[in-house]
Amino acid sequence: MITPHLACLPPLVLTFSAADPSGGAGLQADVLTISALGCHPLSVATAITVQDTVGVAGIMAVPADWVARQARRLLADMPVAAFKIGLLGSVENIALIAQIIAEYPGIPLVLDPILASGRGDELADRKMIAGLRERLLPLTTVLTPNTLEARRLSAGDEEDPAVVLPLAECARRLLDFGCRHVLLTGTHARSEQVVNRLYEQRSGLLRQDVWPRLPGEYHGSGCTLAAAVAACLATGMPVGEAVRAAQEYTWQSLAAAFQPGAGQCIPDRNFELRARRAARDE
Amino acid sequence: MITPHLACLPPLVLTFSAADPSGGAGLQADVLTISALGCHPLSVATAITVQDTVGVAGIMAVPADWVARQARRLLADMPVAAFKIGLLGSVENIALIAQIIAEYPGIPLVLDPILASGRGDELADRKMIAGLRERLLPLTTVLTPNTLEARRLSAGDEEDPAVVLPLAECARRLLDFGCRHVLLTGTHARSEQVVNRLYEQRSGLLRQDVWPRLPGEYHGSGCTLAAAVAACLATGMPVGEAVRAAQEYTWQSLAAAFQPGAGQCIPDRNFELRARRAARDE
Repeated sequence: MITPHLACLPPLVLTFSAADPSGGAGLQADVLTISALGCHPLSVATAITVQDTVGVAGIMAVPADWVARQARRLLADMPVAAFKIGLLGSVENIALIAQIIAEYPGIPLVLDPILASGRGDELADRKMIAGLRERLLPLTTVLTPNTLEARRLSAGDEEDPAVVLPLAECARRLLDFGCRHVLLTGTHARSEQVVNRLYEQRSGLLRQDVWPRLPGEYHGSGCTLAAAVAACLATGMPVGEAVRAAQEYTWQSLAAAFQPGAGQCIPDRNFELRARRAARDE
Repeated sequence: MITPHLACLPPLVLTFSAADPSGGAGLQADVLTISALGCHPLSVATAITVQDTVGVAGIMAVPADWVARQARRLLADMPVAAFKIGLLGSVENIALIAQIIAEYPGIPLVLDPILASGRGDELADRKMIAGLRERLLPLTTVLTPNTLEARRLSAGDEEDPAVVLPLAECARRLLDFGCRHVLLTGTHARSEQVVNRLYEQRSGLLRQDVWPRLPGEYHGSGCTLAAAVAACLATGMPVGEAVRAAQEYTWQSLAAAFQPGAGQCIPDRNFELRARRAARDE
Protein backbone atom coordinates (compact mmCIF):
# COMPACT_ATOMS: atom_id res chain seq x y z
CA MET A 1 0.00 0.00 0.00
CA ILE A 2 1.42 3.35 -1.05
CA THR A 3 0.43 6.31 1.07
CA PRO A 4 0.66 9.86 -0.31
CA HIS A 5 3.88 10.72 1.55
CA LEU A 6 5.62 7.92 -0.32
CA ALA A 7 5.02 9.51 -3.68
CA CYS A 8 7.92 11.94 -3.38
CA LEU A 9 11.02 9.85 -4.04
CA PRO A 10 14.40 11.50 -3.45
CA PRO A 11 16.91 10.99 -6.30
CA LEU A 12 19.05 7.89 -5.71
CA VAL A 13 22.85 8.12 -5.84
CA LEU A 14 24.80 4.85 -6.01
CA THR A 15 28.36 4.98 -4.65
CA PHE A 16 31.27 2.54 -4.73
CA SER A 17 33.67 3.21 -1.87
CA ALA A 18 35.54 1.81 1.11
CA ALA A 19 34.03 1.76 4.58
CA ASP A 20 35.84 4.22 6.88
CA PRO A 21 35.02 3.45 10.53
CA SER A 22 36.05 6.96 11.64
CA GLY A 23 33.11 8.43 9.71
CA GLY A 24 35.41 10.94 8.07
CA ALA A 25 35.75 9.63 4.54
CA GLY A 26 34.65 6.83 2.21
CA LEU A 27 31.25 5.16 2.32
CA GLN A 28 30.26 6.95 5.51
CA ALA A 29 31.10 10.37 4.00
CA ASP A 30 29.10 9.46 0.88
CA VAL A 31 26.04 8.44 2.87
CA LEU A 32 26.02 11.58 5.04
CA THR A 33 26.69 13.97 2.17
CA ILE A 34 24.16 12.51 -0.24
CA SER A 35 21.42 12.44 2.38
CA ALA A 36 22.16 15.98 3.57
CA LEU A 37 21.77 17.18 -0.03
CA GLY A 38 18.28 15.72 -0.31
CA CYS A 39 19.08 12.46 -2.14
CA HIS A 40 19.02 8.87 -0.89
CA PRO A 41 22.38 7.03 -0.75
CA LEU A 42 22.85 3.52 -2.13
CA SER A 43 26.35 2.44 -1.11
CA VAL A 44 28.38 -0.52 -2.31
CA ALA A 45 31.35 -1.37 -0.08
CA THR A 46 34.50 -2.00 -2.14
CA ALA A 47 36.81 -2.45 0.84
CA ILE A 48 36.95 -2.50 4.64
CA THR A 49 39.54 -0.21 6.19
CA VAL A 50 41.07 0.08 9.62
CA GLN A 51 41.66 3.75 10.38
CA ASP A 52 41.28 6.59 12.82
CA THR A 53 41.83 10.34 12.49
CA VAL A 54 45.60 9.80 12.35
CA GLY A 55 46.06 7.28 9.53
CA VAL A 56 45.08 4.15 7.64
CA ALA A 57 46.28 0.93 9.32
CA GLY A 58 44.78 -1.62 6.96
CA ILE A 59 42.71 -2.16 3.82
CA MET A 60 40.95 -5.37 2.85
CA ALA A 61 39.33 -5.32 -0.58
CA VAL A 62 35.85 -6.83 -0.80
CA PRO A 63 35.96 -9.71 -3.34
CA ALA A 64 34.99 -8.40 -6.78
CA ASP A 65 32.01 -10.76 -7.17
CA TRP A 66 30.56 -9.43 -3.91
CA VAL A 67 31.02 -5.87 -5.14
CA ALA A 68 29.23 -6.72 -8.36
CA ARG A 69 26.42 -8.58 -6.56
CA GLN A 70 25.76 -5.62 -4.25
CA ALA A 71 25.53 -3.23 -7.22
CA ARG A 72 23.51 -5.41 -9.57
CA ARG A 73 20.94 -6.14 -6.89
CA LEU A 74 20.39 -2.41 -6.28
CA LEU A 75 20.30 -1.52 -9.97
CA ALA A 76 17.71 -4.20 -10.71
CA ASP A 77 15.43 -2.87 -7.95
CA MET A 78 15.81 0.92 -8.02
CA PRO A 79 16.15 3.81 -10.51
CA VAL A 80 19.64 5.27 -9.95
CA ALA A 81 20.15 8.95 -10.90
CA ALA A 82 23.95 9.23 -10.48
CA PHE A 83 27.02 7.12 -9.73
CA LYS A 84 30.00 8.06 -7.61
CA ILE A 85 33.20 6.04 -7.33
CA GLY A 86 35.82 6.45 -4.62
CA LEU A 87 38.35 3.92 -3.37
CA LEU A 88 38.23 0.79 -5.53
CA GLY A 89 40.24 -1.73 -3.55
CA SER A 90 41.51 -3.98 -6.36
CA VAL A 91 42.11 -4.26 -10.11
CA GLU A 92 39.34 -6.87 -10.21
CA ASN A 93 36.91 -4.43 -8.62
CA ILE A 94 37.82 -1.78 -11.21
CA ALA A 95 37.11 -4.14 -14.10
CA LEU A 96 33.75 -5.33 -12.76
CA ILE A 97 32.58 -1.85 -11.73
CA ALA A 98 33.51 -0.48 -15.17
CA GLN A 99 31.54 -3.28 -16.79
CA ILE A 100 28.44 -2.49 -14.70
CA ILE A 101 28.64 1.29 -15.19
CA ALA A 102 29.05 0.82 -18.95
CA GLU A 103 25.62 -0.85 -19.00
CA TYR A 104 24.04 2.44 -17.83
CA PRO A 105 25.39 5.05 -20.27
CA GLY A 106 22.72 7.64 -19.47
CA ILE A 107 23.59 7.94 -15.77
CA PRO A 108 26.27 10.52 -14.86
CA LEU A 109 29.39 9.20 -13.10
CA VAL A 110 31.57 11.19 -10.70
CA LEU A 111 34.98 9.58 -10.22
CA ASP A 112 37.16 10.55 -7.27
CA PRO A 113 40.50 8.97 -8.22
CA ILE A 114 41.78 8.07 -4.76
CA LEU A 115 45.43 7.08 -5.04
CA ALA A 116 46.50 7.97 -1.52
CA SER A 117 44.70 9.15 1.61
CA GLY A 118 44.76 12.84 2.48
CA ARG A 119 47.48 11.89 4.94
CA GLY A 120 49.66 10.22 2.33
CA ASP A 121 48.85 6.53 2.90
CA GLU A 122 49.16 4.78 -0.49
CA LEU A 123 45.81 3.33 -1.62
CA ALA A 124 46.41 2.34 -5.26
CA ASP A 125 49.24 0.58 -7.06
CA ARG A 126 50.49 0.95 -10.64
CA LYS A 127 48.09 -1.65 -12.03
CA MET A 128 45.11 0.00 -10.38
CA ILE A 129 46.10 3.39 -11.79
CA ALA A 130 46.29 1.87 -15.29
CA GLY A 131 42.91 0.16 -14.81
CA LEU A 132 41.34 3.38 -13.60
CA ARG A 133 42.74 5.31 -16.58
CA GLU A 134 41.79 2.79 -19.23
CA ARG A 135 38.50 1.40 -17.93
CA LEU A 136 36.88 4.14 -15.87
CA LEU A 137 38.00 7.49 -17.28
CA PRO A 138 36.13 6.95 -20.59
CA LEU A 139 32.90 6.47 -18.59
CA THR A 140 33.37 9.49 -16.34
CA THR A 141 31.23 12.65 -16.39
CA VAL A 142 33.24 14.52 -13.75
CA LEU A 143 36.70 13.47 -12.52
CA THR A 144 37.71 15.13 -9.22
CA PRO A 145 41.49 14.80 -8.73
CA ASN A 146 43.59 16.97 -6.45
CA THR A 147 46.87 18.21 -7.94
CA LEU A 148 48.84 15.15 -6.77
CA GLU A 149 46.29 12.74 -8.24
CA ALA A 150 46.09 14.71 -11.49
CA ARG A 151 49.86 14.49 -11.87
CA ARG A 152 50.06 10.76 -11.14
CA LEU A 153 47.06 9.88 -13.31
CA SER A 154 48.21 11.92 -16.28
CA ALA A 155 51.89 10.93 -16.20
CA GLY A 156 52.97 8.50 -18.91
CA ASP A 157 54.44 5.23 -17.65
CA GLU A 158 57.82 6.04 -19.16
CA GLU A 159 57.89 9.64 -18.03
CA ASP A 160 60.48 11.03 -15.64
CA PRO A 161 58.50 11.61 -12.39
CA ALA A 162 60.73 14.60 -11.61
CA VAL A 163 59.27 16.52 -14.57
CA VAL A 164 56.39 18.59 -13.23
CA LEU A 165 53.70 19.19 -15.85
CA PRO A 166 51.64 22.38 -15.76
CA LEU A 167 48.20 21.56 -14.26
CA ALA A 168 46.31 22.70 -17.36
CA GLU A 169 48.35 20.17 -19.35
CA CYS A 170 47.49 17.44 -16.81
CA ALA A 171 43.81 18.30 -17.18
CA ARG A 172 44.08 18.16 -20.97
CA ARG A 173 45.65 14.71 -20.83
CA LEU A 174 42.94 13.45 -18.45
CA LEU A 175 40.25 14.75 -20.82
CA ASP A 176 42.06 12.98 -23.67
CA PHE A 177 41.62 9.71 -21.75
CA GLY A 178 37.89 10.23 -22.25
CA CYS A 179 36.35 11.86 -19.18
CA ARG A 180 34.03 14.75 -20.03
CA HIS A 181 35.01 17.11 -17.21
CA VAL A 182 37.91 17.44 -14.80
CA LEU A 183 37.38 19.31 -11.53
CA LEU A 184 40.95 19.91 -10.41
CA THR A 185 41.00 20.84 -6.73
CA GLY A 186 43.65 23.06 -5.21
CA THR A 187 43.42 21.84 -1.63
CA HIS A 188 46.91 20.29 -1.79
CA ALA A 189 48.55 23.38 -3.29
CA ARG A 190 50.43 25.79 -1.02
CA SER A 191 48.55 28.87 -2.19
CA GLU A 192 46.86 31.20 0.30
CA GLN A 193 43.47 30.47 -1.25
CA VAL A 194 42.08 27.23 -2.63
CA VAL A 195 41.50 27.49 -6.37
CA ASN A 196 39.35 24.77 -7.96
CA ARG A 197 39.20 24.62 -11.75
CA LEU A 198 36.64 22.84 -13.91
CA TYR A 199 37.84 21.80 -17.38
CA GLU A 200 35.61 20.53 -20.15
CA GLN A 201 36.50 18.40 -23.16
CA ARG A 202 35.51 20.94 -25.80
CA SER A 203 35.84 24.36 -24.22
CA GLY A 204 38.79 23.92 -21.88
CA LEU A 205 38.54 25.88 -18.63
CA LEU A 206 34.81 26.12 -17.87
CA ARG A 207 34.85 27.72 -14.45
CA GLN A 208 37.18 28.62 -11.61
CA ASP A 209 36.18 28.99 -7.97
CA VAL A 210 38.28 30.52 -5.25
CA TRP A 211 37.77 29.67 -1.57
CA PRO A 212 39.41 30.97 1.61
CA ARG A 213 41.82 28.25 2.78
CA LEU A 214 40.66 26.90 6.14
CA PRO A 215 43.22 26.20 8.87
CA GLY A 216 43.84 22.59 9.91
CA GLU A 217 43.69 19.29 8.06
CA TYR A 218 40.48 17.58 7.07
CA HIS A 219 39.69 13.90 6.64
CA GLY A 220 37.28 13.18 3.81
CA SER A 221 37.04 16.54 2.08
CA GLY A 222 37.63 14.96 -1.35
CA CYS A 223 35.01 12.26 -0.73
CA THR A 224 32.54 14.89 0.44
CA LEU A 225 33.11 17.03 -2.65
CA ALA A 226 32.74 14.15 -5.12
CA ALA A 227 29.64 12.78 -3.38
CA ALA A 228 28.14 16.28 -3.35
CA VAL A 229 28.77 16.71 -7.09
CA ALA A 230 27.04 13.37 -7.71
CA ALA A 231 24.07 14.36 -5.52
CA CYS A 232 23.72 17.70 -7.29
CA LEU A 233 23.86 15.99 -10.71
CA ALA A 234 21.23 13.52 -9.48
CA THR A 235 18.86 16.40 -8.72
CA GLY A 236 19.20 17.50 -12.34
CA MET A 237 21.67 20.39 -12.16
CA PRO A 238 23.96 20.95 -15.15
CA VAL A 239 27.63 20.13 -14.47
CA GLY A 240 28.86 23.70 -13.89
CA GLU A 241 26.09 24.46 -11.42
CA ALA A 242 26.49 21.10 -9.65
CA VAL A 243 30.22 21.71 -9.24
CA ARG A 244 29.59 25.15 -7.77
CA ALA A 245 26.89 23.96 -5.34
CA ALA A 246 29.01 20.97 -4.27
CA GLN A 247 31.98 23.23 -3.46
CA GLU A 248 29.74 25.52 -1.43
CA TYR A 249 28.38 22.56 0.55
CA THR A 250 31.83 21.06 1.08
CA TRP A 251 33.36 24.36 2.21
CA GLN A 252 30.61 24.79 4.77
CA SER A 253 30.98 21.24 6.07
CA LEU A 254 34.73 21.87 6.49
CA ALA A 255 34.13 25.21 8.21
CA ALA A 256 31.90 23.35 10.71
CA ALA A 257 34.41 20.51 11.22
CA PHE A 258 35.40 19.11 14.60
CA GLN A 259 38.48 17.29 15.83
CA PRO A 260 37.41 14.13 17.65
CA GLY A 261 40.84 12.51 17.98
CA ALA A 262 44.56 13.17 17.77
CA GLY A 263 44.63 13.64 14.00
CA GLN A 264 42.66 15.29 11.26
CA CYS A 265 39.39 17.17 11.63
CA ILE A 266 36.18 15.58 10.38
CA PRO A 267 33.80 17.65 8.22
CA ASP A 268 30.31 18.11 9.66
CA ARG A 269 28.06 17.00 6.79
CA ASN A 270 24.95 17.86 8.81
CA PHE A 271 26.06 21.43 9.55
CA GLU A 272 22.68 22.84 8.48
CA LEU A 273 20.76 20.77 11.00
CA ARG A 274 23.28 21.42 13.76
CA ALA A 275 23.24 25.18 13.15
CA ARG A 276 19.48 25.16 13.23
CA ARG A 277 19.40 23.24 16.49
CA ALA A 278 21.99 25.52 18.09
CA ALA A 279 19.92 28.57 17.12
CA ARG A 280 16.80 26.97 18.61
CA ASP A 281 18.53 26.12 21.90
CA GLU A 282 19.82 29.67 22.45
CA MET B 1 46.00 24.12 15.06
CA ILE B 2 42.59 24.16 16.70
CA THR B 3 40.24 26.95 15.62
CA PRO B 4 37.32 27.99 17.84
CA HIS B 5 34.70 26.19 15.75
CA LEU B 6 36.47 22.94 16.50
CA ALA B 7 35.95 23.25 20.23
CA CYS B 8 32.38 21.94 20.11
CA LEU B 9 32.73 18.18 19.69
CA PRO B 10 29.54 16.21 19.04
CA PRO B 11 29.18 13.08 21.21
CA LEU B 12 30.64 10.02 19.47
CA VAL B 13 28.57 6.85 19.06
CA LEU B 14 30.41 3.66 18.04
CA THR B 15 28.31 1.07 16.23
CA PHE B 16 28.94 -2.53 15.18
CA SER B 17 26.71 -3.51 12.26
CA ALA B 18 26.48 -4.93 8.75
CA ALA B 19 26.76 -2.70 5.69
CA ASP B 20 23.39 -2.53 3.89
CA PRO B 21 23.87 -1.19 0.33
CA SER B 22 20.19 -0.19 0.08
CA GLY B 23 20.72 2.46 2.75
CA GLY B 24 17.70 1.18 4.62
CA ALA B 25 19.21 -0.65 7.57
CA GLY B 26 22.50 -1.60 9.22
CA LEU B 27 25.61 0.57 9.19
CA GLN B 28 24.06 3.08 6.80
CA ALA B 29 20.98 3.49 9.02
CA ASP B 30 23.23 3.95 12.06
CA VAL B 31 25.33 6.63 10.38
CA LEU B 32 22.33 8.64 9.17
CA THR B 33 20.40 8.38 12.43
CA ILE B 34 23.30 9.22 14.72
CA SER B 35 24.32 12.22 12.65
CA ALA B 36 20.75 13.51 12.36
CA LEU B 37 20.49 13.42 16.16
CA GLY B 38 23.53 15.65 16.59
CA CYS B 39 26.17 13.01 17.32
CA HIS B 40 29.07 11.77 15.18
CA PRO B 41 28.93 8.13 14.00
CA LEU B 42 31.89 5.78 14.30
CA SER B 43 30.90 2.58 12.49
CA VAL B 44 32.61 -0.80 12.51
CA ALA B 45 31.48 -3.11 9.69
CA THR B 46 30.77 -6.63 10.99
CA ALA B 47 29.52 -8.00 7.66
CA ILE B 48 28.90 -7.12 4.03
CA THR B 49 25.42 -7.86 2.77
CA VAL B 50 23.84 -8.11 -0.68
CA GLN B 51 20.32 -6.75 -0.47
CA ASP B 52 17.71 -4.49 -1.98
CA THR B 53 14.29 -3.37 -0.75
CA VAL B 54 12.88 -6.85 -1.37
CA GLY B 55 15.23 -9.13 0.54
CA VAL B 56 18.69 -10.22 1.68
CA ALA B 57 20.55 -12.24 -0.96
CA GLY B 58 23.87 -12.74 0.83
CA ILE B 59 25.83 -12.07 4.00
CA MET B 60 29.61 -12.27 4.31
CA ALA B 61 30.93 -11.81 7.85
CA VAL B 62 34.00 -9.59 8.20
CA PRO B 63 36.79 -11.67 9.81
CA ALA B 64 36.72 -11.18 13.60
CA ASP B 65 40.26 -9.82 13.80
CA TRP B 66 39.34 -7.10 11.27
CA VAL B 67 36.27 -6.22 13.34
CA ALA B 68 38.41 -5.94 16.46
CA ARG B 69 41.11 -3.91 14.69
CA GLN B 70 38.56 -1.40 13.41
CA ALA B 71 37.12 -0.92 16.89
CA ARG B 72 40.35 -0.81 18.85
CA ARG B 73 41.83 1.78 16.52
CA LEU B 74 38.84 4.08 17.02
CA LEU B 75 38.71 3.56 20.79
CA ALA B 76 42.40 4.38 21.17
CA ASP B 77 41.97 7.65 19.27
CA MET B 78 38.57 9.01 20.30
CA PRO B 79 36.33 9.35 23.39
CA VAL B 80 33.25 7.19 22.70
CA ALA B 81 30.02 8.16 24.53
CA ALA B 82 27.81 5.17 23.60
CA PHE B 83 27.95 1.80 21.83
CA LYS B 84 25.32 0.26 19.60
CA ILE B 85 25.40 -3.30 18.29
CA GLY B 86 23.32 -4.60 15.39
CA LEU B 87 23.99 -7.57 13.15
CA LEU B 88 27.06 -9.46 14.37
CA GLY B 89 27.90 -11.77 11.48
CA SER B 90 29.59 -14.63 13.35
CA VAL B 91 30.13 -16.27 16.74
CA GLU B 92 33.75 -15.13 16.57
CA ASN B 93 32.64 -11.52 16.11
CA ILE B 94 30.35 -11.81 19.13
CA ALA B 95 33.17 -13.05 21.36
CA LEU B 96 35.66 -10.35 20.29
CA ILE B 97 33.12 -7.52 20.44
CA ALA B 98 32.02 -8.62 23.92
CA GLN B 99 35.65 -8.64 25.02
CA ILE B 100 36.20 -5.08 23.74
CA ILE B 101 32.96 -3.67 25.20
CA ALA B 102 33.76 -5.25 28.57
CA GLU B 103 36.90 -3.09 28.71
CA TYR B 104 34.71 0.07 28.74
CA PRO B 105 32.20 -0.58 31.54
CA GLY B 106 31.22 3.09 31.90
CA ILE B 107 29.93 3.46 28.33
CA PRO B 108 26.24 2.59 27.73
CA LEU B 109 25.52 -0.18 25.22
CA VAL B 110 22.36 -0.50 23.13
CA LEU B 111 21.95 -4.01 21.69
CA ASP B 112 19.57 -4.62 18.82
CA PRO B 113 19.39 -8.43 18.77
CA ILE B 114 18.96 -8.99 15.04
CA LEU B 115 18.00 -12.61 14.47
CA ALA B 116 16.14 -12.17 11.18
CA SER B 117 15.56 -9.27 8.84
CA GLY B 118 12.25 -7.43 9.00
CA ARG B 119 11.34 -9.51 5.93
CA GLY B 120 12.06 -12.80 7.66
CA ASP B 121 15.51 -13.63 6.22
CA GLU B 122 17.38 -15.60 8.93
CA LEU B 123 20.45 -13.71 10.15
CA ALA B 124 21.59 -15.65 13.22
CA ASP B 125 21.94 -19.35 14.04
CA ARG B 126 21.55 -21.18 17.36
CA LYS B 127 25.20 -20.70 18.34
CA MET B 128 25.03 -16.98 17.69
CA ILE B 129 21.89 -16.67 19.79
CA ALA B 130 23.63 -18.46 22.66
CA GLY B 131 26.70 -16.21 22.28
CA LEU B 132 24.57 -13.11 22.25
CA ARG B 133 22.70 -14.21 25.37
CA GLU B 134 25.72 -15.28 27.36
CA ARG B 135 28.36 -12.77 26.27
CA LEU B 136 26.52 -9.59 25.31
CA LEU B 137 23.33 -9.40 27.37
CA PRO B 138 25.24 -8.96 30.67
CA LEU B 139 26.95 -5.88 29.16
CA THR B 140 23.79 -4.30 27.75
CA THR B 141 22.19 -1.08 28.99
CA VAL B 142 19.17 -1.24 26.66
CA LEU B 143 18.14 -4.32 24.66
CA THR B 144 15.69 -3.56 21.84
CA PRO B 145 14.00 -6.80 20.68
CA ASN B 146 10.76 -6.98 18.79
CA THR B 147 8.30 -9.60 20.00
CA LEU B 148 9.72 -12.35 17.75
CA GLU B 149 13.28 -11.68 18.91
CA ALA B 150 12.21 -11.48 22.56
CA ARG B 151 10.56 -14.90 22.28
CA ARG B 152 13.52 -16.55 20.54
CA LEU B 153 16.11 -14.99 22.84
CA SER B 154 14.26 -15.83 26.03
CA ALA B 155 13.26 -19.38 25.10
CA GLY B 156 15.16 -22.15 26.87
CA ASP B 157 17.02 -24.56 24.56
CA GLU B 158 14.88 -27.46 25.71
CA GLU B 159 11.60 -25.59 25.61
CA ASP B 160 8.74 -26.50 23.30
CA PRO B 161 8.71 -23.73 20.66
CA ALA B 162 4.94 -24.08 20.40
CA VAL B 163 4.51 -22.74 23.95
CA VAL B 164 4.00 -18.97 23.66
CA LEU B 165 5.27 -17.12 26.73
CA PRO B 166 3.57 -13.90 27.82
CA LEU B 167 5.75 -10.95 26.73
CA ALA B 168 6.23 -9.66 30.27
CA GLU B 169 7.68 -13.08 31.15
CA CYS B 170 10.03 -12.88 28.12
CA ALA B 171 11.21 -9.47 29.29
CA ARG B 172 11.80 -10.76 32.82
CA ARG B 173 13.92 -13.62 31.48
CA LEU B 174 15.97 -11.26 29.33
CA LEU B 175 16.58 -9.01 32.36
CA ASP B 176 17.63 -12.12 34.30
CA PHE B 177 20.34 -12.70 31.67
CA GLY B 178 21.86 -9.42 32.85
CA CYS B 179 20.74 -6.55 30.62
CA ARG B 180 19.59 -3.49 32.57
CA HIS B 181 16.63 -2.51 30.37
CA VAL B 182 14.51 -4.19 27.72
CA LEU B 183 12.69 -2.01 25.20
CA LEU B 184 10.19 -4.47 23.75
CA THR B 185 8.79 -3.12 20.50
CA GLY B 186 5.33 -3.97 19.22
CA THR B 187 5.93 -3.34 15.52
CA HIS B 188 5.51 -7.06 14.74
CA ALA B 189 2.30 -7.47 16.72
CA ARG B 190 -1.06 -7.38 14.93
CA SER B 191 -2.56 -4.69 17.17
CA GLU B 192 -4.08 -1.54 15.72
CA GLN B 193 -1.52 0.60 17.51
CA VAL B 194 2.15 -0.05 18.14
CA VAL B 195 2.82 -0.44 21.86
CA ASN B 196 6.45 -0.29 22.98
CA ARG B 197 7.28 -1.22 26.57
CA LEU B 198 10.41 -0.43 28.54
CA TYR B 199 11.23 -2.85 31.36
CA GLU B 200 13.88 -2.28 34.00
CA GLN B 201 15.71 -4.80 36.16
CA ARG B 202 14.46 -3.52 39.51
CA SER B 203 11.14 -1.84 38.87
CA GLY B 204 9.68 -3.92 36.06
CA LEU B 205 7.62 -1.93 33.54
CA LEU B 206 9.16 1.55 33.48
CA ARG B 207 7.22 3.14 30.64
CA GLN B 208 4.85 2.32 27.82
CA ASP B 209 4.46 4.33 24.64
CA VAL B 210 1.68 3.95 22.12
CA TRP B 211 2.07 4.99 18.48
CA PRO B 212 -0.36 5.03 15.55
CA ARG B 213 0.57 2.07 13.33
CA LEU B 214 1.77 3.35 9.95
CA PRO B 215 0.66 1.60 6.76
CA GLY B 216 3.25 -0.25 4.71
CA GLU B 217 6.44 -2.11 5.58
CA TYR B 218 9.67 -0.41 6.57
CA HIS B 219 13.25 -1.51 6.11
CA GLY B 220 15.54 -0.55 8.98
CA SER B 221 13.05 0.69 11.57
CA GLY B 222 14.65 -1.44 14.30
CA CYS B 223 18.17 -0.25 13.40
CA THR B 224 16.96 3.35 13.40
CA LEU B 225 15.35 2.99 16.82
CA ALA B 226 18.37 1.35 18.45
CA ALA B 227 20.82 3.85 16.92
CA ALA B 228 18.58 6.69 18.07
CA VAL B 229 18.49 5.35 21.63
CA ALA B 230 22.31 5.15 21.59
CA ALA B 231 22.60 8.71 20.24
CA CYS B 232 20.22 10.04 22.89
CA LEU B 233 22.13 8.23 25.65
CA ALA B 234 25.36 9.69 24.23
CA THR B 235 23.97 13.20 24.66
CA GLY B 236 23.44 12.46 28.35
CA MET B 237 19.72 11.69 28.55
CA PRO B 238 18.56 9.18 31.20
CA VAL B 239 17.32 5.87 29.77
CA GLY B 240 13.57 6.60 29.95
CA GLU B 241 13.93 9.96 28.26
CA ALA B 242 16.30 8.57 25.60
CA VAL B 243 13.85 5.78 24.79
CA ARG B 244 10.99 8.27 24.45
CA ALA B 245 13.00 10.67 22.23
CA ALA B 246 14.30 7.82 20.06
CA GLN B 247 10.77 6.53 19.43
CA GLU B 248 9.62 10.01 18.49
CA TYR B 249 12.51 10.37 16.02
CA THR B 250 11.97 6.89 14.56
CA TRP B 251 8.24 7.37 14.14
CA GLN B 252 8.83 10.63 12.27
CA SER B 253 11.45 9.05 10.00
CA LEU B 254 8.97 6.25 9.19
CA ALA B 255 6.15 8.73 8.55
CA ALA B 256 8.46 10.45 6.03
CA ALA B 257 9.54 7.19 4.38
CA PHE B 258 9.71 6.63 0.64
CA GLN B 259 9.51 3.51 -1.52
CA PRO B 260 12.46 3.49 -3.93
CA GLY B 261 12.07 -0.07 -5.23
CA ALA B 262 9.68 -2.98 -5.44
CA GLY B 263 9.85 -3.86 -1.75
CA GLN B 264 9.86 -2.16 1.62
CA CYS B 265 9.83 1.58 2.30
CA ILE B 266 12.99 3.25 3.57
CA PRO B 267 12.76 5.62 6.54
CA ASP B 268 13.90 9.18 5.86
CA ARG B 269 16.41 9.82 8.64
CA ASN B 270 16.93 13.41 7.45
CA PHE B 271 13.20 14.28 7.53
CA GLU B 272 13.86 17.48 9.48
CA LEU B 273 16.19 18.88 6.83
CA ARG B 274 13.93 17.76 3.99
CA ALA B 275 10.83 19.31 5.58
CA ARG B 276 12.71 22.55 6.11
CA ARG B 277 13.86 22.61 2.49
CA ALA B 278 10.37 21.87 1.18
CA ALA B 279 8.96 24.73 3.27
CA ARG B 280 11.64 27.08 1.91
CA ASP B 281 10.96 26.11 -1.70
CA GLU B 282 7.21 26.76 -1.43
